[in-house]
Amino acid sequence: MTETAVVALDVGGTGMKCALVRPDGRVHHTERHPTGADRGPDAVIDTILDVAEGLAGKAQADGLEVVAAGVAVPGVVDEVAGVARWSANVGFRDVPLRDLLAARLGRPAALGHDVRVGGIAEARLGSGRGSDHVLFVAIGTGIAAAHVVGGSAFAGAHGAAGELGHIVVRPGGPRCGCGQLGCLETIASASAVGRRYSEISGTPATAAQVAGHAAAGDPLAADVWRETVEALADGLLTAQALFDPEVVVLGGGLAEAGAALLDPLRAALRRRLTFHREPRLVRANLGDEAGCVGAALLALDTLEAP
Amino acid sequence: MTETAVVALDVGGTGMKCALVRPDGRVHHTERHPTGADRGPDAVIDTILDVAEGLAGKAQADGLEVVAAGVAVPGVVDEVAGVARWSANVGFRDVPLRDLLAARLGRPAALGHDVRVGGIAEARLGSGRGSDHVLFVAIGTGIAAAHVVGGSAFAGAHGAAGELGHIVVRPGGPRCGCGQLGCLETIASASAVGRRYSEISGTPATAAQVAGHAAAGDPLAADVWRETVEALADGLLTAQALFDPEVVVLGGGLAEAGAALLDPLRAALRRRLTFHREPRLVRANLGDEAGCVGAALLALDTLEAP
Repeated sequence: MTETAVVALDVGGTGMKCALVRPDGRVHHTERHPTGADRGPDAVIDTILDVAEGLAGKAQADGLEVVAAGVAVPGVVDEVAGVARWSANVGFRDVPLRDLLAARLGRPAALGHDVRVGGIAEARLGSGRGSDHVLFVAIGTGIAAAHVVGGSAFAGAHGAAGELGHIVVRPGGPRCGCGQLGCLETIASASAVGRRYSEISGTPATAAQVAGHAAAGDPLAADVWRETVEALADGLLTAQALFDPEVVVLGGGLAEAGAALLDPLRAALRRRLTFHREPRLVRANLGDEAGCVGAALLALDTLEAP
Repeated sequence: MTETAVVALDVGGTGMKCALVRPDGRVHHTERHPTGADRGPDAVIDTILDVAEGLAGKAQADGLEVVAAGVAVPGVVDEVAGVARWSANVGFRDVPLRDLLAARLGRPAALGHDVRVGGIAEARLGSGRGSDHVLFVAIGTGIAAAHVVGGSAFAGAHGAAGELGHIVVRPGGPRCGCGQLGCLETIASASAVGRRYSEISGTPATAAQVAGHAAAGDPLAADVWRETVEALADGLLTAQALFDPEVVVLGGGLAEAGAALLDPLRAALRRRLTFHREPRLVRANLGDEAGCVGAALLALDTLEAP
């Protein structure tokens, strides 16, 4: 019996993570390519399809039969229609990426949302494994979440569910890129943490550096870190009240702070819980391959669908 | 072919709404009984089972075959196990109500959560009909929501999802019964609206009366109503960011204010939307039979499950 693989791509604003993934989630081969978003959406689409075809060739050379293909993109994604509705940082607007990919490879394909497929991967194969109710929270340039129940992520009516970064935790607070005041991501995204520290200290720093400075006793960094943790705990309290997950998996750049984030966050959330059940708060463990693995799982799901 | 019906009960803190419901959701017969919660949980369980048996007898007398039974209760409900985990106002603690009901009637039975079955009924047969993504929000003594996707409501990992009344919209605000400060229901539940008006005016009033006074030009009532609408809009904005529903169905006592609530609320929500898609904001239309109809639908679902 021929062994099989899925062609998987996770397309971001600057780079594409690409892989051949086995049906059990093991990654057989990875590649990285620049997205080249400045070339315009048509060129990006061509690159996606060319890279996918290249991966299919690699699979064949390795004796693997390609059974499906999956691609994940950021922004507003209609998974049912297979259309990238709006992805600001790759310039997509109503691109039928699923059908384009299926046509190029002659295989069933799936299109997913980057955070939702990451959530699917973490829920099924990563830190959420074994639970039917997982909330995956990606904290990077922005903050977004995927509510994964029984291994499937909820997209919402318009592909816009899970925007945890845009719940208002500080009414009248900092202006968010979305236009609102006091959105969670104006305080607690990795970018916001670095920016807030730079503003009060005069020294540029990444979020990871702020965490390090705080641990080393820098009082300004400790203040910024504490505010970050408090804002995240406010956001997670709201998520717990609405979604009631069993496990909350934290991913993205900020989660790389590890225990320096998770320990105080767990305590801050616990202080806020009243009737709520306490979720298990854990760090994502598939790293930056979660997107590719999730895109592959989504593609495999299309094969099983009736 | 014999016509069929489902025995359905919606058990509240003071009364039980009971019905025979046809498979298409039409209500064939209704009854009301006092819950008598002061008699203790065992007596309440006996009453539920006796009333259910009585309804089955009524069905038989009317030439209807009872194919299933459904019961809805408030509190924390484990639908999968069929157990009422914790219902403060009926005194239930880990009551296996589904199996008790099935054993008494000799028919398949289902146990549901009062707000979630109300949401299922409104989504499938009421104001949310035709949409796959419905958020049902019940505003009465408290505020709770049901997120209904494809006709099914999400219970969460511990049966505690949808607690929209306990998201913090006024940090540092009024103390909530749950222990937190500034929960949505401390401002915008029907009870909170009446209480807030009574406090500042010295005149007792129900929420409906406050809405009436506000419409008639009473400035104190107008202030209370405006704050209510603003707080609800803050809560619905968060729900939109996380669930991305297509339709938001408002039910419960406060929704009886009709356009006096919906019109300003729609405008207040619209002012807050940034990237979000605007949901259709409508009033529930099954009235207080929604719970019975939903309990019946849940029971019918068990017949179809594989």
